[in-house]
Order: sequence, then structure tokens, then C-alpha cells
Amino acid sequence: MPRKTKSSEDYHRPRIGIDLLGCETSPDKILTAIASHHFEGEHPPLFTIFGTKEIFERVSTSEDFFCHVVTEEITMEEDPLLAVRRKKDSSIAVGIDKLKAFEIDAFISGGNSGALLAKTTISLQMLPGIDRPAFLTLIPSKIEPIAVLDVGASVDAKAETLLQFAKMGIAYQKARGVSHPVVGLLNIGEEKRKGTPEIRKAYEILQTLNTTDPIDAPTFIGNIEGRNVFLGNIDVLITDGFTGNVFLKTAEGIAGFVLDQMQNLGPLESIPGIRSIIEALKNRLSYAEYPGAILCGGEGIVIKCHGASPPEAFIHSITSASRLVKNSFIEKIKAELI
Amino acid sequence: MPRKTKSSEDYHRPRIGIDLLGCETSPDKILTAIASHHFEGEHPPLFTIFGTKEIFERVSTSEDFFCHVVTEEITMEEDPLLAVRRKKDSSIAVGIDKLKAFEIDAFISGGNSGALLAKTTISLQMLPGIDRPAFLTLIPSKIEPIAVLDVGASVDAKAETLLQFAKMGIAYQKARGVSHPVVGLLNIGEEKRKGTPEIRKAYEILQTLNTTDPIDAPTFIGNIEGRNVFLGNIDVLITDGFTGNVFLKTAEGIAGFVLDQMQNLGPLESIPGIRSIIEALKNRLSYAEYPGAILCGGEGIVIKCHGASPPEAFIHSITSASRLVKNSFIEKIKAELI
Repeated sequence: MPRKTKSSEDYHRPRIGIDLLGCETSPDKILTAIASHHFEGEHPPLFTIFGTKEIFERVSTSEDFFCHVVTEEITMEEDPLLAVRRKKDSSIAVGIDKLKAFEIDAFISGGNSGALLAKTTISLQMLPGIDRPAFLTLIPSKIEPIAVLDVGASVDAKAETLLQFAKMGIAYQKARGVSHPVVGLLNIGEEKRKGTPEIRKAYEILQTLNTTDPIDAPTFIGNIEGRNVFLGNIDVLITDGFTGNVFLKTAEGIAGFVLDQMQNLGPLESIPGIRSIIEALKNRLSYAEYPGAILCGGEGIVIKCHGASPPEAFIHSITSASRLVKNSFIEKIKAELI
Repeated sequence: MPRKTKSSEDYHRPRIGIDLLGCETSPDKILTAIASHHFEGEHPPLFTIFGTKEIFERVSTSEDFFCHVVTEEITMEEDPLLAVRRKKDSSIAVGIDKLKAFEIDAFISGGNSGALLAKTTISLQMLPGIDRPAFLTLIPSKIEPIAVLDVGASVDAKAETLLQFAKMGIAYQKARGVSHPVVGLLNIGEEKRKGTPEIRKAYEILQTLNTTDPIDAPTFIGNIEGRNVFLGNIDVLITDGFTGNVFLKTAEGIAGFVLDQMQNLGPLESIPGIRSIIEALKNRLSYAEYPGAILCGGEGIVIKCHGASPPEAFIHSITSASRLVKNSFIEKIKAELI
């Protein structure tokens, strides 16, 4: 199916690239879910789908879909850098190349995170002042969702890099409509002397986000402990990729554990309708409801879905990516970085 | 009130030192809770209480209590090393000195963690092969509680130090009655190539815990992600103090968040008795139910209660400390380390 020439009415429609390969979820199910979903709004997305010939023969799509056949797949087990170098016709390599060539506005993949990161770093131009990309994800809180970065792109990060991450997080929350995003640094205590030498240095450097005018509310409010993050007093949580990844996965793990313990309680089990209530809460906390992790730092919107995401997670990612495109996320980050 | 001479019937009673100072909880409440608690078993503890003259005048105790008056207090805000050096007659300094002199068998404090750590490191002899102490704590899981260390003594740790932590964790679980404790390394993925260079090195070194006999079940089962810890497939979780502290506090934070979200759900709120069920679950997950963190590595049992612990947390810590004394915890660690 040839891609439609962009008509004037298509001009405002975000062009979203989707990688069907390399994740645990069935590509047929992902494509079927997207093709059968009704995307609301005046300018629903146009899709470029990266997959195999066989998938496109099995699943039928509408004229909003351009199906791009690739001949290679990067698996979860592969060494990221080697895989990206060797498999030039893999969905990840071709998808990022299309993003670089401005043929799509955003690229969504559930595949090998390391490969996605490597290809992004190699092929996309880094944004001004950004040395390394970061994975950003939204987590729920008692008040509003919090943007956490980095949740796994780099296993360590210098203080200067953490400041770059903070600026990207601020830009992201501004693109979501938060007028004055507040930043916290994930640490083991609130006092400025807490943490590793690099984290203590980051505490100092992040102060530069605050103006010297005492009338202005501070942007950087200091260290925040894991137990207080979910109170929702911040909009952006800054951390290195190792700690951030542990933080995120621990939050996932304990949330599941608490809900399981809840289900195991005898008296609860006998209450009519309790199961559906707990399921609703699980969904509220599930990262399937959230747009996956945004790989930010490069000139282009790249979103990573969890490798075992249900097809609905892709729908959420598409909605989120479309919003980022419409809100000129990359332009907003650039403005914040200058 | 002079301390009773150890009669033959007292010989098997664990001698527990309690620091009443330096934490948010009222010292009167802590002492009252301990004095009015009935400790079960053939050999209930004998107490040496460190506090001010005023506290001992306000709260009356039995003949099982020896009240040791101290004239100084280390506060939460003080620089740990400076405070320990200057305040020789503080409850922390005197308590650890008594432990060193074998006048007590265990010391429990809710005060300044850094000061407790500094005094322990300076004054107690380190166990054979141990370079640095670690805070060890128990967390609940779907199966049995897991010993996590380090949860905050050192902000970073070398691979060799993590191996020492593993041996202490194994000894602790053996003292709790686990015959073959299984060890996991907290990391951002299960593959051995994951994590920081130091964590990757630790993965290699921890293999030395396993015998070369393929019939033996492995002791070290590799990397474990935060989301899988609570499944309970391990008995000991090894991590550096920074990551471990973030892990623990995140677990606390999200557990509270989930339960709060649960309470906010309209339909649940209308169910009779739901509040008491949720409270029961909160207690099950609350660290007040757990014995606080054990500061292990020195020649003596030192337990740190959270600074805002309810008095009941001290009771749990006393029970736990008594068990460690009776089970010859220090001797068991030594045997594991040789």
C-alpha cells in the first residue's frame, strides 16, 4: 500500500513510526490493536509500520498505514552495538533513519532498549548542550504524574549530565502543560551532604536552575527520598540511569506485591466486586497506562515501550507521541537548553 | 537502681542496651513501652538504658533495668564524626563502649545513623575479613522475609565489599533458621553484562559463593531486578548502600501510596470493615513490624531503629536482638567469614 501524498488536510497529522519486531508481544496483535483503534481528535496520526512481509500479509490496515517491510530483526538477547552495526535493515535501524530524514515525526519501539539507545546516539543529532540521551518516564503520584529521568540509558552520570536531564524534564512537563515544573534530586536523605560525591556535586549544580530573585519560586527544591516521591510535591525527578531503573522497577514490584497481598486477605476476597476494584487500581498503577519511556536527548521523538507491554501500551504511546509532536516537544526542549 | 549481679539464673538472659536519646520519638514513651511489655520465654532480656537523669526520674522501671545516666545527646542534625569525637558521654558513645567491654550483648538506638556507624567503626573490632560495616534490614516477600544489605552505611561499595556483605547476609539468615540461604545481586537486568562496572565485577566475584559440584544448589543465583525481589526467590539481596537505601525507601513510599489510593476509592470506602483490613495490611508492610536495621560488620550486635519509629518498633528490635544473642549471631558470622 503506497503512502498517501501529504494532502493539505494531512499536514497537521502526526506521522508515527511503529516497530512491530523484537518484543515479546505478538506483532500481529500490536498491529491489529492499532489498526482497529479509533484515535480521537481533529488530526489523528498517520502510521509508518516497520515489520515483516508475513505480518503485513496477515493483518489488514487502512489507508492511514504505510507498511514498510524490513528483512532483519534485532532480538532482546543481542549485543546492542553489534546488532545496530550489522543489521542495517532491522526495524530499529530503519525506523531511526526515517526519523532522522524527517519522514516520520516520532518512532515507537518495544524492542532491545540498548539497540534503540545505540542507534539513536549514533544516528540522531544530539540536542544543543546534551551529551547523552536519557530515558524519561511518567509515574503516578498523589497529585500529578512525575517525569523521572534517567531510568536506564546510562548506568552512571556526571553532575553536569544530571543538569541536562533536569532541563529536558522541565521541557517535557512544560509540553504537558505544567507552567512551572519543580525539580527534585533522588537521594538517600534531604540534607545536601547526603549521597555519593557526584550526587552532592549535582545538588550544587542544579541550584543554577533557580533565579537569584527571592520572589521567584524555586525550580530545584533539593534532595528527595524514595518514600516521599509519590507525595507529588515535584514534577521532575532527577537520577542516574542505574538508580532510576532500580527505583522504577522497585515501585512496580512493590505495587504488585501489595495488591497481591490484598487479594490474598481472606475477608477481602469475600467482598462482592472487590476483584474488579483491585484490577482497576492495578491498571491505574500499571505502566501500560503510561506512555512508556521517552528516549530524549536526540533530535527526534523516540519512545520505548516495555518489551512485554500489552498492545494497549502501544496505543497509549501513540497518543502520547502525537501530543508531543503537536506540542512541538523537540522545539520546547531546545528553547529550554539554550 | 544498681544492676543486679548476674546470678546463675540470669546467665542466659540477653543483656540489651537501649539508647533513649536522639530520635523523634519521646524517650519517656519508649521507656514506658519497654518497661510495661511482657517479654516471653524462659530467659527474658535484662536492660541497660542510656538516658538523662530527668527521664529516669519520670519513668519507673523494674529490677531488670539498669539506668545509665548520660550527660550528652547527639542530635540528628549533627555531623556524625565530629559529634562522636566530641561527645564522649553521649548515649551512642557510651552504649557502644559498653558493647565493646562486653557489659551488654546488643545495643539498640534510634539516633543519628551516621554517628552510630562512625562510633561502631571506630570503637568495635571489625569481624575477620570485613572492611566496612553494612546496614542489614529484613523486608517482607511473597514467601519468606529477605535480608537486604547494605541499606545505607556506605554510599558506594567495591565488588569485594559486596562479597563480604553477602557472607554476612548468609550468616544472618542461617541464624534465623534458613538452612541454605540464596543470594541475589540487585541490578537493572538479569543478564551478567548489566549494571555499572563495579556491579558487573561483583557478579563475577559472588560466583565464588557457589561450589564447583553441580549437585549442590547454587548460593548466588545472579542478578535480580527490583520488580522481582518481592517474589521471594532469594533470601539475601546484595546492593551498595546508596542503591539499597533508595530501594528500601521507594518500597516504603509506594506501599503507602498504593494503600492510600485504595482508601480513596469510593466503592471500597463503603465496605464495612475495610478500614481495619487496610490497616492490618499497612502493619504487615510497615517497617515498625521489622526489627530495624542491623549494623553488621563489627564485633557486637548493633541495631538501628528508624528515627521516627513508634515505641513498638523498639519492642520488635529487642525481640530480634535477643534472638540474635541467643543464636550466637556474631559467632555464626565469624564461622561464615573464615
